[in-house]
Amino acid sequence: MDYKKSFYQIRSNEYILDKLKKEVESIGYYKLPFADTSKIKEFAKSVDKKNIVVIGIGGSSLGTSAIYDFLKRKNPLKPLHFLETTDPIDITGKLNSLNLNDTLFIAISKSGTTVETIAIVKYLSSILELNRDNFVVISENDTPLMHFGKSNNMNCFEIPKDVGGRFSVFSSVGLLPLATVGVDIDNMLNGAKKIYSSFFNQKKIYDILMEKARFIVENKSRFNINILFSYSSALEGFNKWYVQLWAESLGKININGTRQGLTPIGLIGPVDQHSFLQLIMQGVRDKTVTFIKVADFEEQIIVPKNTPIKELNYLEGVSFSKLIDMQADATIEAVDKENDIPYDVITIDRVDEYNIAELIFKYELLVSIIGVFLQIDTYDQPGVESGKLILKSKLKGK
Amino acid sequence: MDYKKSFYQIRSNEYILDKLKKEVESIGYYKLPFADTSKIKEFAKSVDKKNIVVIGIGGSSLGTSAIYDFLKRKNPLKPLHFLETTDPIDITGKLNSLNLNDTLFIAISKSGTTVETIAIVKYLSSILELNRDNFVVISENDTPLMHFGKSNNMNCFEIPKDVGGRFSVFSSVGLLPLATVGVDIDNMLNGAKKIYSSFFNQKKIYDILMEKARFIVENKSRFNINILFSYSSALEGFNKWYVQLWAESLGKININGTRQGLTPIGLIGPVDQHSFLQLIMQGVRDKTVTFIKVADFEEQIIVPKNTPIKELNYLEGVSFSKLIDMQADATIEAVDKENDIPYDVITIDRVDEYNIAELIFKYELLVSIIGVFLQIDTYDQPGVESGKLILKSKLKGK
Repeated sequence: MDYKKSFYQIRSNEYILDKLKKEVESIGYYKLPFADTSKIKEFAKSVDKKNIVVIGIGGSSLGTSAIYDFLKRKNPLKPLHFLETTDPIDITGKLNSLNLNDTLFIAISKSGTTVETIAIVKYLSSILELNRDNFVVISENDTPLMHFGKSNNMNCFEIPKDVGGRFSVFSSVGLLPLATVGVDIDNMLNGAKKIYSSFFNQKKIYDILMEKARFIVENKSRFNINILFSYSSALEGFNKWYVQLWAESLGKININGTRQGLTPIGLIGPVDQHSFLQLIMQGVRDKTVTFIKVADFEEQIIVPKNTPIKELNYLEGVSFSKLIDMQADATIEAVDKENDIPYDVITIDRVDEYNIAELIFKYELLVSIIGVFLQIDTYDQPGVESGKLILKSKLKGK
Repeated sequence: MDYKKSFYQIRSNEYILDKLKKEVESIGYYKLPFADTSKIKEFAKSVDKKNIVVIGIGGSSLGTSAIYDFLKRKNPLKPLHFLETTDPIDITGKLNSLNLNDTLFIAISKSGTTVETIAIVKYLSSILELNRDNFVVISENDTPLMHFGKSNNMNCFEIPKDVGGRFSVFSSVGLLPLATVGVDIDNMLNGAKKIYSSFFNQKKIYDILMEKARFIVENKSRFNINILFSYSSALEGFNKWYVQLWAESLGKININGTRQGLTPIGLIGPVDQHSFLQLIMQGVRDKTVTFIKVADFEEQIIVPKNTPIKELNYLEGVSFSKLIDMQADATIEAVDKENDIPYDVITIDRVDEYNIAELIFKYELLVSIIGVFLQIDTYDQPGVESGKLILKSKLKGK
C-alpha cells in the first residue's frame, strides 16, 4: 500500500520567523522604531500655535489618535483635533470651535491624493491663507500634496514608500503630531524597540505571539470574530486602530484564491458589560476575546464611606482603580467558567508612551504573523480600489 | 408509503404579527411614544443649570447619547455629558471640566442598584451636596436609588417595570435629559408613532421589516455578522445604541436550548472606507451590510474652485454634502458589483428629532421580530448575571 498526502499545512514557527526576517528587508514598518527623531523633535519645539489639527483619514489618523486618546487625560498635552471626514457638519463644527489664527494644520496623506484630505485642504485654503507658519505636509516623496508643500516653502516630512498607512504610526505620520502636542516620542519608540528585540531574539513575546496567531488561524472557521475588550475608556482610540489594522490587513483573497478574513470588534469595559457581553456569554460560540487591563491608573479617587445613599455599601472604601480592575476580573472569571470561549488577558503596566507603543507594536507583529499563516499580502488593500474608481467617475461626470 | 415531517419551521408573517400584538400588551416599549410628556416638559423648562450630566450606563445612556450626538451639531442644545464608567481618569477628567455649581446631575438606573451608577453617585456626594436643586432620579418605583431621591425631596421620574433598559429611550430615561438640553421631544415621539402605526397597520414599514428579519434569520449561519455602515459622524452614538440593542437582545439561548446570536458592528462612512471596507470586499462572505445615508445635511460648504493645490480638480465646486453622498453611493455600487454581499440602504431625510426617532423605533421593531423568529426572550439578559455575582463576592471579600 502506498500513501501520499497533500493536506494544507499550517507552517512551522521556524518557517514563519524566516518569512518575517525576510519581510524586515522589504517592509518598512519593522525598522521605524530605530529611526532618528531629531528633526521631528526640533520642528515640534519650534511650534508656538496653541491648537494642532491633523487632516488625515485611516492610517493617517488612527494611530496618532489611539496614542493621544490614551495619554491625554493623564498628561498636559496640547489640544489635538482630527479632520478626517467629508461630513460637512463635522468639518464646520470643528473649524468653528478653533481660533484658526492660533492653529497648526498637519495634512497627512501617503498617496498625496486622498479624496477626503485633499477636499478639506482645498476648503481650508478658501477660508485661511495656508503658509509655512500654519501648514505642514506629511506624504510620500513626489506626490501632489508634497509638491504643494514644497512649492509653498512649507515644512514637509516624508513617509517612506515601504511603510503602509496602517503600519505608519511610528513614522513621521504619528511622531510629528504627537511630538508637537508634547508626547515623549523617544520613550514611545523605546517601547516598540523592546517588543521588536524580544520577538526577533525569540524571547517571551515570540512564544506568546506565535501561539496566539496559530490558535487564531487554526480555528478561524469556528471563531471568525476576534474581540478586543479594553478596560479603560482611554483605549477607545486604540480599539479603532486595531479594527483597521486587523480588518484591512487580514481581509484578503490568499494565494490559493480563497477568501480569508477574521472580523475585529473593539469593546470598552465596563461600559460594554451592559451591551455586548450578553452576546459573548450566551450567543453562538464564534468569538475569541482578548481582555486589556491597565494595572495602575495612578488616579486615586475612592468611593467614600458613610455616603447618604444607603445601597451597595460594600463599594465604600474601594478606589475606582481597584473597582474597574475587579470588574475586569469578574468578567474574565465569568467567561472562563463557560469553558468554551477562547480568551487571553493583556495587562498594561501604566498609562504612558512606552506601554501603549509596546501594545501597538505587538499587534503589528501579530498581524504580520497571521498574514504569513494565511498566505496573503498583509500590506496591500486592493478591495477598496473599485469604490474609489466609481467615485472618481461619478465626480468627473457630475 | 407514509410521510411525516417535523422540520424546524420558519414562522409565517401572520404568526409573527400575532405574537407581536400580544407583546404590545405585556412589553412596555411599544406604548412609550403615546405617553403624556407634559410633566417632563414642565420640569425641563424649570432647569436653569448650564450643564447637564447623565449618570447612567448601557440602556440608561446609549439611547440618549445616540439622539444627542445626532442633533447637537445642527441645533443649539445645552452641553450634555455622560458619566457612565468606573474608569477613574474618565470620571475626574469630566468632573474637573465642569463648574459643578452650575450642573444638574440626572442619575438613571432601572434597578436602582447598578454598580457603576451608585459608585459614581456616592463619590459625587463626597465632593458636592446633592439636593433638589442639582440632582434628579430616574428609576423604577421602589428601588434604593428612588428611595434616596424621594427621601431627599428630589425630583424623581419613574421607569415602568415592563420597559427594558435598552428599549427605554422613549421613556423618561431618554425624554427627560433630552428635553432638558432643548430637544423637541414631542416631535421625536411623532417619528416613533409614525413607525408604530405604519407597522401595525401593515403598511410599507411592515413589509420591509418582515422581509429583512426573515432574510437575516434564514441566513444566520452563513451571515453571522450584521454591519451598520452609517454615512455621518453624527451617527456614531446611534451605532453604539444599535450594537447594544442587537447584541443584548439577540444573543440568547432559545426555547430549544440552542445558542442564537447575530453579531452587530457599527461603522462610520467615509472613515471606515479606509479601515473595515477591505474586509467587506475581499474577506469571507459572513456579513450583511445596512447602509444609512442622510439625504440632506443642510450645511452648504463647498470645495471651492481654483485652489492653490492642483490635484483632484474634479472635486472643485462640489458641496461636501453631495460629496459624502457620492462616497456612500460609490461604496454601495462597489458592494453591489460583488453580487454576493447582502445589503440594504436606509436614507434619512434630514438631521432632526423626527427622523432619528423613526430610525430608532424601526430598529426596536426589527429586533422584536427577529426575536420571535429565533424563539428567544428578546427582553432579558441572563448572561450578564454571573459576572455581577462574581464581582459582588469579590467586593464583599475585599
